[in-house]
Amino acid sequence: MAPGTGRDTASIRQHNLRTVLRHLHLHGATNRVELGKVTGLTRSAVGDLVAELTARELVTESEVEVASGARGRPSLVVAPRDDNARVVAVSVRVDTLRVTSVGLGGTVGEVVEVPHEHVPSDPRPTLEQLAMLLENQLKALNSPPLAVGVAVPGLVRTTDGTVALAPRLRWRDLSLREELGRRVNLGAPLVTGNDSNFSTLAEHLRGAGRGHGHLVYLFAELGVGGGIIVDNQLLVGGKPGYGGEVGHMVTDPGGRPCDCGGHGCWETQIAAAALLRHAGISAATDYDRRAAVTELLARADRDDPAAVAALTALVPPLAAGIATLLSLFNPERIILGGLIAHVLQHADAEVRAAITYHRPALSNSPVDLVPAELGDKAPLLGAAEAAINTFLDTFARGAPSAQSAGK
Amino acid sequence: MAPGTGRDTASIRQHNLRTVLRHLHLHGATNRVELGKVTGLTRSAVGDLVAELTARELVTESEVEVASGARGRPSLVVAPRDDNARVVAVSVRVDTLRVTSVGLGGTVGEVVEVPHEHVPSDPRPTLEQLAMLLENQLKALNSPPLAVGVAVPGLVRTTDGTVALAPRLRWRDLSLREELGRRVNLGAPLVTGNDSNFSTLAEHLRGAGRGHGHLVYLFAELGVGGGIIVDNQLLVGGKPGYGGEVGHMVTDPGGRPCDCGGHGCWETQIAAAALLRHAGISAATDYDRRAAVTELLARADRDDPAAVAALTALVPPLAAGIATLLSLFNPERIILGGLIAHVLQHADAEVRAAITYHRPALSNSPVDLVPAELGDKAPLLGAAEAAINTFLDTFARGAPSAQSAGK
Repeated sequence: MAPGTGRDTASIRQHNLRTVLRHLHLHGATNRVELGKVTGLTRSAVGDLVAELTARELVTESEVEVASGARGRPSLVVAPRDDNARVVAVSVRVDTLRVTSVGLGGTVGEVVEVPHEHVPSDPRPTLEQLAMLLENQLKALNSPPLAVGVAVPGLVRTTDGTVALAPRLRWRDLSLREELGRRVNLGAPLVTGNDSNFSTLAEHLRGAGRGHGHLVYLFAELGVGGGIIVDNQLLVGGKPGYGGEVGHMVTDPGGRPCDCGGHGCWETQIAAAALLRHAGISAATDYDRRAAVTELLARADRDDPAAVAALTALVPPLAAGIATLLSLFNPERIILGGLIAHVLQHADAEVRAAITYHRPALSNSPVDLVPAELGDKAPLLGAAEAAINTFLDTFARGAPSAQSAGK
Repeated sequence: MAPGTGRDTASIRQHNLRTVLRHLHLHGATNRVELGKVTGLTRSAVGDLVAELTARELVTESEVEVASGARGRPSLVVAPRDDNARVVAVSVRVDTLRVTSVGLGGTVGEVVEVPHEHVPSDPRPTLEQLAMLLENQLKALNSPPLAVGVAVPGLVRTTDGTVALAPRLRWRDLSLREELGRRVNLGAPLVTGNDSNFSTLAEHLRGAGRGHGHLVYLFAELGVGGGIIVDNQLLVGGKPGYGGEVGHMVTDPGGRPCDCGGHGCWETQIAAAALLRHAGISAATDYDRRAAVTELLARADRDDPAAVAALTALVPPLAAGIATLLSLFNPERIILGGLIAHVLQHADAEVRAAITYHRPALSNSPVDLVPAELGDKAPLLGAAEAAINTFLDTFARGAPSAQSAGK
């Protein structure tokens, strides 16, 4: 047992403030009676918490007309102050950089996107670009951000937020927090995380996973990413948090080498290279592969038999991997994004039959497979949710500090 | 967010009492100063908690001579009262039933084992046997047990503790809690769980996994069981908790049918049937297979080349499955029990090389693979730990009730 696990009254108050804020963030304006139910606290205790949050300019309270037929005083409704309480979110992508701000409550600001002028193995040009984008965002806010979240295509150490390895950028052991902190005065904690983990957070809280405490999110494009939500928490794996690497499950033990240095990974069977192989299309670079996949998916949508056949050829390995994830996590829902969402679209019955072949249903209800909702904005929106979580965690501890999430 | 997540002062006190009891259970007698460090509470607050636990006859306090050279008053040492505070643990096995009691602090009583007179598809004879064993245990205790834990070889619903499916016993939808409650007055909450999950708990708290918050436990015999500890918690999967089924990961997509009704499961590649197949030994029944494996393992220990070769033939599928678990959970340690512990013993270098082939190390440290420590007593000891957890949970809520854990 970790030291200091006892609780005192100050920490309870912080916990309760956090509970109210989190509810407002996820559910929007809420009346006091409902907040009492959510927290299990008395009317006066709720009033007291709301007063503190109002004084801190995090929420605002207003009277709302009671619906006709209801009696008594108008209800006091508490709403997050998204004019003032905002986080900044950044998504580092191989080809572009994206940045936006998101208010407490989830309102997303304008998304700024610029070409990513990255130099392999040298993160400095990227850092300069990011610093400029962040400065512009900060200027546009009414007050300092609550926190900043940065999604990165690589393995991130949960212990200190360092990017241990970003293969496509060829970054190794980069402390984004320190490097950005030297270039910009953020005035807020910064959280870094793996883009797939952040996408999973976003789909869980704002996308196809809303209301599901146990889910798996899978995304295939050039590679395979994804994440696992267990009991409403993102699975990050043992220290330093490199778990959740669904794309590197071994689904083809005698199979091909993978970009990760291993062999037989799922990524070699269900991502762009595999799809193009089945379609007989050769493409040498990531850029070409992406373009060829886009064209192939458009052909499939026009019912081109060869394109549909190439997608259908991904069914057996897709189903085998899903069966493994079902055995390990028994999720309520599996969310498919990227090109595997198109496999589901064009071969739904085949996917379900192949899953059942490996993993007979444990109940009468079939596997709940759905397409993702947030598209390629998921890492950015997830970075915002991670930033909100970081703010709430530091808030609950009563002092600002920084932390990290992700692989 | 779940309703009622706010905290009040009464619930904090229960939480702190639970923290002290859990520390005493896992670490044994502890002085007050140390308990202060563990809980983060003041000297007087700790004294107050200990007074309540003493009054409830759960702990005892005594003065201990201070080591020579130290100064001041003799230290007050708090110890769990294992004469009085005990749980009852039961392990339902296909061939035998086992029962024992375990004290707060972990002292294990005499283990009673009787042949299991089970009738396939009819749980009644088993229930009668269990009722008699439980009555004898209860009579031997000084006071009613804190809780009762029952390990079952099957899928257990976490929502209500029902045994949904126990394939080797051919039980379906059996409410052990209700059925045993009708036959014996337990006077305590009863927790039912999957035997592999309970074994994982036991290895984590009392065996090869002590001190490791992220681990995977694997056990192969007639089938493959195991469990996953994530951040010191057993992964039970989505409602109703049928996750953690490591034996049914699909590691051989084109492979054999499995007893579960699926195809290509890990269990078809690394359990008794596969080992005997590689050794060219045919055995028709579970009983014969178990005997043949025992003999084969003895031959391997005498360096019989054919027996060692049969064990070594399990290396590729063993490594592929472990690589998948590493990618998903990045555990600090992987614990191997049953016949795969013998694979590790006789082909250690081959196992490690094959894992690295699929999953190159993410750091300089090699995978921490170790043999299990608790042998076939693990489910029984895990049932005791689950019972202690149930007692602590109900204690922390301030009222007794029953709950379940496991698949």
